[in-house]
Amino acid sequence: MLHFDSDYMEGAHPELMCRLMETNLEQTVGYGNDEYTARAKELIKKACLCPEARVHFLVGGTQTNATVIDGLLARHEGVMAAESAHINVHEAGAIEASGHKVLTLPSYEGKVRAADVEQYVTDFYRDETYEHMVAPGMLYISHPTEYGTLYTLEELRELSRVCRVAHIPLYMDGARLGYALAADDTDVTLPEIARLCDVFYIGGTKVGALFGEAVVISNPTVLPHFFPLVKQHGALLAKGRLLGVQFETLFTEGLYEKIARHAVSLAMRLKDAFRAKGYEVYIDSPTNQQFFRLPNEEIDRLMRYATFELWGPRGRTHTVVRFVTSWATPSEAVDELISLL
Amino acid sequence: MLHFDSDYMEGAHPELMCRLMETNLEQTVGYGNDEYTARAKELIKKACLCPEARVHFLVGGTQTNATVIDGLLARHEGVMAAESAHINVHEAGAIEASGHKVLTLPSYEGKVRAADVEQYVTDFYRDETYEHMVAPGMLYISHPTEYGTLYTLEELRELSRVCRVAHIPLYMDGARLGYALAADDTDVTLPEIARLCDVFYIGGTKVGALFGEAVVISNPTVLPHFFPLVKQHGALLAKGRLLGVQFETLFTEGLYEKIARHAVSLAMRLKDAFRAKGYEVYIDSPTNQQFFRLPNEEIDRLMRYATFELWGPRGRTHTVVRFVTSWATPSEAVDELISLL
Amino acid sequence: MLHFDSDYMEGAHPELMCRLMETNLEQTVGYGNDEYTARAKELIKKACLCPEARVHFLVGGTQTNATVIDGLLARHEGVMAAESAHINVHEAGAIEASGHKVLTLPSYEGKVRAADVEQYVTDFYRDETYEHMVAPGMLYISHPTEYGTLYTLEELRELSRVCRVAHIPLYMDGARLGYALAADDTDVTLPEIARLCDVFYIGGTKVGALFGEAVVISNPTVLPHFFPLVKQHGALLAKGRLLGVQFETLFTEGLYEKIARHAVSLAMRLKDAFRAKGYEVYIDSPTNQQFFRLPNEEIDRLMRYATFELWGPRGRTHTVVRFVTSWATPSEAVDELISLL
Amino acid sequence: MLHFDSDYMEGAHPELMCRLMETNLEQTVGYGNDEYTARAKELIKKACLCPEARVHFLVGGTQTNATVIDGLLARHEGVMAAESAHINVHEAGAIEASGHKVLTLPSYEGKVRAADVEQYVTDFYRDETYEHMVAPGMLYISHPTEYGTLYTLEELRELSRVCRVAHIPLYMDGARLGYALAADDTDVTLPEIARLCDVFYIGGTKVGALFGEAVVISNPTVLPHFFPLVKQHGALLAKGRLLGVQFETLFTEGLYEKIARHAVSLAMRLKDAFRAKGYEVYIDSPTNQQFFRLPNEEIDRLMRYATFELWGPRGRTHTVVRFVTSWATPSEAVDELISLL
Repeated sequence: MLHFDSDYMEGAHPELMCRLMETNLEQTVGYGNDEYTARAKELIKKACLCPEARVHFLVGGTQTNATVIDGLLARHEGVMAAESAHINVHEAGAIEASGHKVLTLPSYEGKVRAADVEQYVTDFYRDETYEHMVAPGMLYISHPTEYGTLYTLEELRELSRVCRVAHIPLYMDGARLGYALAADDTDVTLPEIARLCDVFYIGGTKVGALFGEAVVISNPTVLPHFFPLVKQHGALLAKGRLLGVQFETLFTEGLYEKIARHAVSLAMRLKDAFRAKGYEVYIDSPTNQQFFRLPNEEIDRLMRYATFELWGPRGRTHTVVRFVTSWATPSEAVDELISLL
Repeated sequence: MLHFDSDYMEGAHPELMCRLMETNLEQTVGYGNDEYTARAKELIKKACLCPEARVHFLVGGTQTNATVIDGLLARHEGVMAAESAHINVHEAGAIEASGHKVLTLPSYEGKVRAADVEQYVTDFYRDETYEHMVAPGMLYISHPTEYGTLYTLEELRELSRVCRVAHIPLYMDGARLGYALAADDTDVTLPEIARLCDVFYIGGTKVGALFGEAVVISNPTVLPHFFPLVKQHGALLAKGRLLGVQFETLFTEGLYEKIARHAVSLAMRLKDAFRAKGYEVYIDSPTNQQFFRLPNEEIDRLMRYATFELWGPRGRTHTVVRFVTSWATPSEAVDELISLL
Repeated sequence: MLHFDSDYMEGAHPELMCRLMETNLEQTVGYGNDEYTARAKELIKKACLCPEARVHFLVGGTQTNATVIDGLLARHEGVMAAESAHINVHEAGAIEASGHKVLTLPSYEGKVRAADVEQYVTDFYRDETYEHMVAPGMLYISHPTEYGTLYTLEELRELSRVCRVAHIPLYMDGARLGYALAADDTDVTLPEIARLCDVFYIGGTKVGALFGEAVVISNPTVLPHFFPLVKQHGALLAKGRLLGVQFETLFTEGLYEKIARHAVSLAMRLKDAFRAKGYEVYIDSPTNQQFFRLPNEEIDRLMRYATFELWGPRGRTHTVVRFVTSWATPSEAVDELISLL
Repeated sequence: MLHFDSDYMEGAHPELMCRLMETNLEQTVGYGNDEYTARAKELIKKACLCPEARVHFLVGGTQTNATVIDGLLARHEGVMAAESAHINVHEAGAIEASGHKVLTLPSYEGKVRAADVEQYVTDFYRDETYEHMVAPGMLYISHPTEYGTLYTLEELRELSRVCRVAHIPLYMDGARLGYALAADDTDVTLPEIARLCDVFYIGGTKVGALFGEAVVISNPTVLPHFFPLVKQHGALLAKGRLLGVQFETLFTEGLYEKIARHAVSLAMRLKDAFRAKGYEVYIDSPTNQQFFRLPNEEIDRLMRYATFELWGPRGRTHTVVRFVTSWATPSEAVDELISLL
């Protein structure tokens, strides 16, 4: 059976496992005060060309979003996000559980538009009763989005500009950031992200690590007391060096982008193959998630050989499906899937 | 340098690392719906002689406490705990952040007394203004406590009885539970704990795992909707099988208790040696944490060879220190330390 | 200047003020444990034909909604409500501040449809990832809605049926309930509301009282510990008898409906007059709030004589406006306004 | 029967009721944007000699404390307060419900000592694990305290100094502030309070108003967005002018202090009488709450003629009782009580 369900079906990239093995019985202090973590932070700041950044390592995406957003917002503020955003739909109310409303914006294949953000803020403060409503206190975006799509550098600049005019921080959820950086034709780089966002995270869980997300606070004034919040949110790993070791390895000799590149190129082959067979590409994603609209009988047939997700409810004749590649997907698996089309 | 700072200075027990390596490139579904996790749950239920239990795996202790307590309490209720309890002191307000007050009881070397619990509940409902106060909604205990001490079976039975009479759940924080089970002369076993507590957790992070805590809900009626809370608290590991693989290994052929036994026997040797040298044993702990009251000059001398924690502020002439052994402490390290006394 | 801005521009109905004066220097115990409050509760239970109900008096609407909803929901649940619902838009995030998400349903002139509720619940549990999402834990409706519209008895029965099938409580925000009960042709009565909803409140602030909302828990099993929550939410009035005195008066000799009837009949005259002049009735409200779509120049002209609210942003040629009558609106004010059209 | 249970047994001072009656049918905008409220704010700022202050009117004490404290604290911070503080004991967990821990200090007849505050802060930041603990983010004091005692100006200055050195705001709960200001020999005045505290409130509920507390933010930088928090906490009164009318009256021609003075002088007569009869004055309170330790048979005898509170559980032979006077207590009632001793 071939598996294209998600990009978190395997453990870690072998180089990371190897380093975890080598260092396994070393003794270090806890909570990320070790040398591995210190070096990983330096490597990330360097990769971001952002020496003033503060870097923290957390375990998973939902906890990272909840902790960062809780830290960025005042009590009377909410977070603007696309209706389709992970924080709005699939985090079991983690944002609300820490007291904040998600203020939804229209989603364009997972992306938000600067004009909509600007409009939201303008309309809000124009409303005479605005103090009875939840103030837009920050903007959440994901890159790639939940639909595998990417912002262009121009779009990101616009979002950043609009947020700065409105004095609200811009936060990027980079759960799959590696696959964005590795996309063909993208002009969005890590240093640009660090320059344009106030806070973002570089996802490890879905890009080669056992687990782990690197929060980069490129503008530390917006989030001055992050560590106790990490502890309060139960997001502080006792053996913090496990995160340090993994991210040090990922950010040595470009491993992070290299393994992401592998997943993206397989995804492009998959897209080309589906398209060549005449199937409808539902969303033209340049990253490792691919969405096709297939006839139901074709879906049933493929499911005998491969696992993948239905994207939304089954339609009457056709249904949207998602195929995901990862750093771990063997080329042969893609070949085999293509041969089955 | 010898290290006796804590029991989370190394990675995982080699058998666990080995299994993580062997299974690393296998593909499984996420969030703990895999076969490893299923088997680990069965092994734990069997070890607890509690087939009706529900078992969930979380990543760390603070998040486990916050999630369980949040699930057990109604909004108007608080959690009773010893003044010295980890949840009251060292979790950065995680309990309060989810809306609940910690109601403190006197601490006797980290333990609470059934009579105090009973008194608290009785006094509460006798007070005419009780509906203006936070109701005692559950009891939190740790075993071993933060001071390495243990409840006897009789004490645990009394706590359980008092809680059941008061209709409040009893929850045990077992961050170091292995070291309790492996202690000499303890009459508290896993099946007794499962029978007497409503919920407890079996700590992995400090007893052989990279990370991970196994929450055992032995009385599922008190916590019917735990999974979405785990997600909401950001405590759901995407690659849940990492927890499954580790706990399956720990609960195969008695590994969990075996490695805990190693730590405890080293700790006993340490205690005997300090005592033989005439030093004051500050708390007579039967587990892997040992507390001595040493002259300051002796502390300074030892610190040239070994790391360990000052327990509280430095005194004028003497100071209490903590030495911790773990599953990973080499016998030779203890020998060497003893030779230095 | 004539005022039609809202129904909370005056103090209390003279009979209430009179009773407050008469009883002013009497000494009673606090927090609603007095005789006035006891009698008011009995009168309300009688008016609802619901002897098993529990009645509590709170001060204002937002606090009532936040307290009731907080009590009805488990931590992993959210509240379904129309997109336009007061709790979703104009309560400054009070629901989220106590940890809960508002799950929005389409709004039909402020009303929700049973079919949409049913669909939401069905879709939710059909989704394989539902435990990663916020569960629909209750339904919030308002009657009259924010647009002055009313449910029919048949619609309310359907909503109640759908909620009971889904095992979720139905809660009605009755901030303006008097004006609903006093509407022409409505078949929804207080006893029917008590029978079909699990909890609802009878608004005093907007219907004759200085302040005060009577929460009726007609199904006490869904909200067993309400009093401490009221205190915790800061919603407990020290001099609780002020609420008791006012509601006792409102529910003596039908005063509540009588004064509401006055407001409604004036509102109907207003509607007829606008319609007769050829103006567009924007929403056909049978209650004390009336919405017209007027030419901007007509708005500007009227604003020289009367105050009223623009409903939403000013349009290019026409704008929707709201005129509100209350128990206190003099007939002459309506006459004068009509003469100005 | 004579009543000395509390200072919130009656309605409002007749002058306030009179003003509420006179203005009852006037029409004003809601939420405190009316002229009465504006004038009341000016009068209070003037009485505080603090033109830069911002003043807000809320309904009750628990909600005021919860709202102010929520606004003053960052998420990782808690509020220091005496163990006996109202927020720690009798507010049903309102502080924790908004996410914050109460950090307790020793209570000296309800007061905290500057040295203890200083020690707490110093010890906190000296602890190497301080980022795992709840940071002291503000200081809560009450004046008078729950035991009727008062700070001296010197004590208040010290507290203020310690807080400013530690960069944490000082907040005073003035639920009974009038009775403090009216005490004999006190050197603490309203302008001094405004100068030394960052935020405080002037209690109306217990000093002549139907309800209402005036929050004075004398240092607006510490609480820049208070209004939306008031709304979010359900503490915004729709008919805000009711608060404005009452406080305008209280702060016209010194009414607030005058009626408080009445209560205090009666309390002093009571204390002298009990003392003269040889009874033990349990706490030497200079304000309207008096605490005596009486023989149980004397308590039983007095209870036939008067109501008052047992302060804590009944002792074997003696019990502490509380007698409270208020602006409304008739001199004759005190005469009669004294004649019964």
